[in-house]
Amino acid sequence: MTGTLFVVGLGPGPEYWLTGEAQAAIARAELFFGYAPYLARLALRPDQKAIASDNREELDRARAALDAAATGKTVCMVSGGDPGVFAMAAAVCEAIDRDAAWPAVTLEIVPGITAMLAVAARLGAPLGNDFCTMSLSDNLKPWTVIETRLRAAATAGFAIALYNPVSKARPTQLDNAFNILRDCLPNQIPVIFGRAVGRPDENIAIVPLSEARANMADMATCVIIGTPLTRIVQRAAGPIVYTPRFVPETSQ
Amino acid sequence: MTGTLFVVGLGPGPEYWLTGEAQAAIARAELFFGYAPYLARLALRPDQKAIASDNREELDRARAALDAAATGKTVCMVSGGDPGVFAMAAAVCEAIDRDAAWPAVTLEIVPGITAMLAVAARLGAPLGNDFCTMSLSDNLKPWTVIETRLRAAATAGFAIALYNPVSKARPTQLDNAFNILRDCLPNQIPVIFGRAVGRPDENIAIVPLSEARANMADMATCVIIGTPLTRIVQRAAGPIVYTPRFVPETSQ
Repeated sequence: MTGTLFVVGLGPGPEYWLTGEAQAAIARAELFFGYAPYLARLALRPDQKAIASDNREELDRARAALDAAATGKTVCMVSGGDPGVFAMAAAVCEAIDRDAAWPAVTLEIVPGITAMLAVAARLGAPLGNDFCTMSLSDNLKPWTVIETRLRAAATAGFAIALYNPVSKARPTQLDNAFNILRDCLPNQIPVIFGRAVGRPDENIAIVPLSEARANMADMATCVIIGTPLTRIVQRAAGPIVYTPRFVPETSQ
Repeated sequence: MTGTLFVVGLGPGPEYWLTGEAQAAIARAELFFGYAPYLARLALRPDQKAIASDNREELDRARAALDAAATGKTVCMVSGGDPGVFAMAAAVCEAIDRDAAWPAVTLEIVPGITAMLAVAARLGAPLGNDFCTMSLSDNLKPWTVIETRLRAAATAGFAIALYNPVSKARPTQLDNAFNILRDCLPNQIPVIFGRAVGRPDENIAIVPLSEARANMADMATCVIIGTPLTRIVQRAAGPIVYTPRFVPETSQ
């Protein structure tokens, strides 16, 4: 028997950011895997079953979902945001690659609104020109690689979106990152802390790089660092932040 | 009178990638601005009017939409993909900034599925680790800046998603970009040409960097260049391409 594994992006939180494709996949699936807070967003029918897991055991969770699909079931692995951006799609691909198993399972990845795009939309267009997207977690990546990438991106004039900026086990790395960026970038560059975007406890703050601190972020925060060209425009309804499309000849 | 300007991301094409928020904004608006092929996707009611424009006059289009909203209308500017990624949100912000006008217009940016996420979802997780997103157009950015950014991103180990890879006026820049990348990266790195993703004429091709050529792309293509760690896994249903979450100590 062959089944299907959908790897579905739920977006950052609210149902209005779900796509039609994601809704259709959720309606079709009979068995759901995922991190408990993401599964809690779903209004499952009595015939649909959810298996919640810890946020850290991603490869085991991928294998369990593939095993279930291999029995012929239609299975849904849910991710926050987009499954391809620091979420479950890579773990599912890794499981298939490492184990050389589940040849008959149909894999369908369903894209979603990833946090940086939702945070950017709240403020204008801070990612309106070239940008980099990085995870700040060194659980799977040496800190020296993170440091090299931060310097390369900032020096070349990319805006930077940081996922996983802090965790309980990594409370100070974001301060290290800000110190590296203060080495390469002007003090007044806007730093956006986009917390829980779209959820009831959403909080979006803008501070100059000189004042950015790790304690302004938590695990639910996406941090966006502007470029030397990024502008803040004050309006009665609140500031707009955008990175212009035009780059002068003198820029990096 | 004060009106509202929605800047709405339609996603790469099919209706199933529209979010609920985008559908609600389209239902509310009375006047629509945008590039004609994007407006053609909408099934407007008789009481809704569309004003199509050329793809190049983005700032003029933004001003016209803001002017209409300032008369009290509910206006919708449509973008393909996500409006904040090489699309209309930055042009609207620029118009507000340059002209210091339209203080009472409510600006609502509605995020969408941007092309690189849709292309990545078709194949697995090629953007599953740190990545950069760049426009290859030098209409608004000097080529020297593009070259510097390509080298910085590739050397630091980022995957790279290229928007606007070619146009009729710029048929050879993508070949210049591939030549730069061949300087910095191994020959066998996978290059993905994701053309018209989600549309009836979708075509996704994977070639090694050594064989990547500009004539494999057109204006509807998003090009994704992997990293030295990106892997291709052959499956009966077609290859998976993903960039692992784990980065060894010896990597850049």
